[in-house]
Amino acid sequence: MGEKKFIQYITAGLFSNNNVLVKPGADDAACVKVGNETVVLTTDIMFLSTHFPVQMTFEQIGRKITIANLSDLAAMGSLPISFLAAFGLPSTYEFRDFKRIISGINSTCREYNIPFVGGDTKKAKELTISGIAVGTMQNADILKRSNSREGDIIAVTGNIGSAACGMLGLLKNEKVPRKILNAFLHPTARIREGRIVAESKIKAAGMDITDGLLYSVSEISSASNVRIDIELDKIPVDTYVRKFARGHGIPIEQILNIGEDYELLLSADSKHFEKLQDKIKNAGGNIHPIGNVRKGKGIYLNKKKINPNGYDAFKTRF
Amino acid sequence: MGEKKFIQYITAGLFSNNNVLVKPGADDAACVKVGNETVVLTTDIMFLSTHFPVQMTFEQIGRKITIANLSDLAAMGSLPISFLAAFGLPSTYEFRDFKRIISGINSTCREYNIPFVGGDTKKAKELTISGIAVGTMQNADILKRSNSREGDIIAVTGNIGSAACGMLGLLKNEKVPRKILNAFLHPTARIREGRIVAESKIKAAGMDITDGLLYSVSEISSASNVRIDIELDKIPVDTYVRKFARGHGIPIEQILNIGEDYELLLSADSKHFEKLQDKIKNAGGNIHPIGNVRKGKGIYLNKKKINPNGYDAFKTRF
Repeated sequence: MGEKKFIQYITAGLFSNNNVLVKPGADDAACVKVGNETVVLTTDIMFLSTHFPVQMTFEQIGRKITIANLSDLAAMGSLPISFLAAFGLPSTYEFRDFKRIISGINSTCREYNIPFVGGDTKKAKELTISGIAVGTMQNADILKRSNSREGDIIAVTGNIGSAACGMLGLLKNEKVPRKILNAFLHPTARIREGRIVAESKIKAAGMDITDGLLYSVSEISSASNVRIDIELDKIPVDTYVRKFARGHGIPIEQILNIGEDYELLLSADSKHFEKLQDKIKNAGGNIHPIGNVRKGKGIYLNKKKINPNGYDAFKTRF
Repeated sequence: MGEKKFIQYITAGLFSNNNVLVKPGADDAACVKVGNETVVLTTDIMFLSTHFPVQMTFEQIGRKITIANLSDLAAMGSLPISFLAAFGLPSTYEFRDFKRIISGINSTCREYNIPFVGGDTKKAKELTISGIAVGTMQNADILKRSNSREGDIIAVTGNIGSAACGMLGLLKNEKVPRKILNAFLHPTARIREGRIVAESKIKAAGMDITDGLLYSVSEISSASNVRIDIELDKIPVDTYVRKFARGHGIPIEQILNIGEDYELLLSADSKHFEKLQDKIKNAGGNIHPIGNVRKGKGIYLNKKKINPNGYDAFKTRF
């Protein structure tokens, strides 16, 4: 069973009420009405054996779990207000190593101005970190996956494929440039970009692309019931990544669909797009149009219909 | 290093701001101001090898992780509004078993009227469940551990030691009555009792006693800088539990300090106590006075100073 089907199956019939604003499993994070506020909730759990290659430092492990959670809030257009983390620690674990993970989380929280408010620690067979990010949605519209409409422009917030290339470089023990390595080892969450789009109140769609670009495009296409056309040449890809793909005989589409990039995929009305682009650029960010939304179904790469198979959480990786 | 010292050490220097209403590690849950609301956040992570004895059904595992988290909200006096769960699943895991865990969580959420809004699933070496409960504090005062004052009455919300006795019965493979077994296998969170105390606005202290009664008394005593006197005979203990302790030559204090009871320990002004007791009884709950708060330090059992050593998360249990 693929991850998507699996999630659909387990989220069917979960207890809910009128305060729940998005269906479980349907978006990057849960949204719950609390008085006049909308609280956005997400959790991302990671295990040493599947998520952290040996080359990662403990500080980088702490950063990764934090960014993975913040990126889910960014994808909703939410402003983060709290971070929590629950840990499973093997009995052989060195306390100083654990302190370095905490320090990696804490410095990321400081960088994003988000209080690190609590957590839990227990004994476990392998190093386990469950991160929890909490945000709000004041003066903003939720960037639901189902908000994409005919006439929208599809865009991404930065280079795609760099993180995957950095990861492959590490796994193949190849020297890759620092900026490529850092896309994987020292990622960034696009909180600012998500906020600007959500605050523009143009009913945009958003999702992060950590599970692969084409997978995310397909998610927005099926949730919104629209056809999405992507132009391969418009996708921003670092020159080194193109060279790396060629050198290893890997089609560039495959690199773009590995995931690990904490960039946002956005869909916004073409009439408002230029203004949005200006706002994001003025705030020091980036947004690159890569395609269009049409009436119909499915996703098309250079006018050819494709069937994307994103990263599946149930495949072993490291 | 004991759990308490460990938590103090890792929570020192965590990034914070003025919206954070309780210090990390200082209470059962985190409290964060969001607009006019107070949002209460807690996470409790559990692993098959340390938290779930083989006799537990998958539904009971689901219930336990949910109640453990709800109990932390109850201890703050919070009204739960959302539950999330992140899972680590071994590749050998049967999907139908996982569905039964989800069903155990979902039926507990339904019982407490709390939407189950989302989560995460990943591959892991052992079954892992990270629960997250989110609550609010409308019209209520946080039941901080530091709120206990000279003149307060110390009370508990139900029988103590039953869950520990049920657990020991299971581990020793002994037949114990169903109600004792259920205190361990089918626990209850004292949301209603916590809410009534918090809504009374008498600046009461609260904590759950899952880590042992005397440990919790000691926590409130040191956080509030008061002396607490407990009378052993006043502690409500099931007749069977007393018999079990005698039969196994275990001092009753030891049974009371094993923990696992999701009851609340409360400290409230003696002037208001009777009224509080009436309200809780009228709502179908219980509250039993077990001692008093005085000027000074330390905790006293039958007028004798004691040094409680609560359950330590870093000891192996099953």
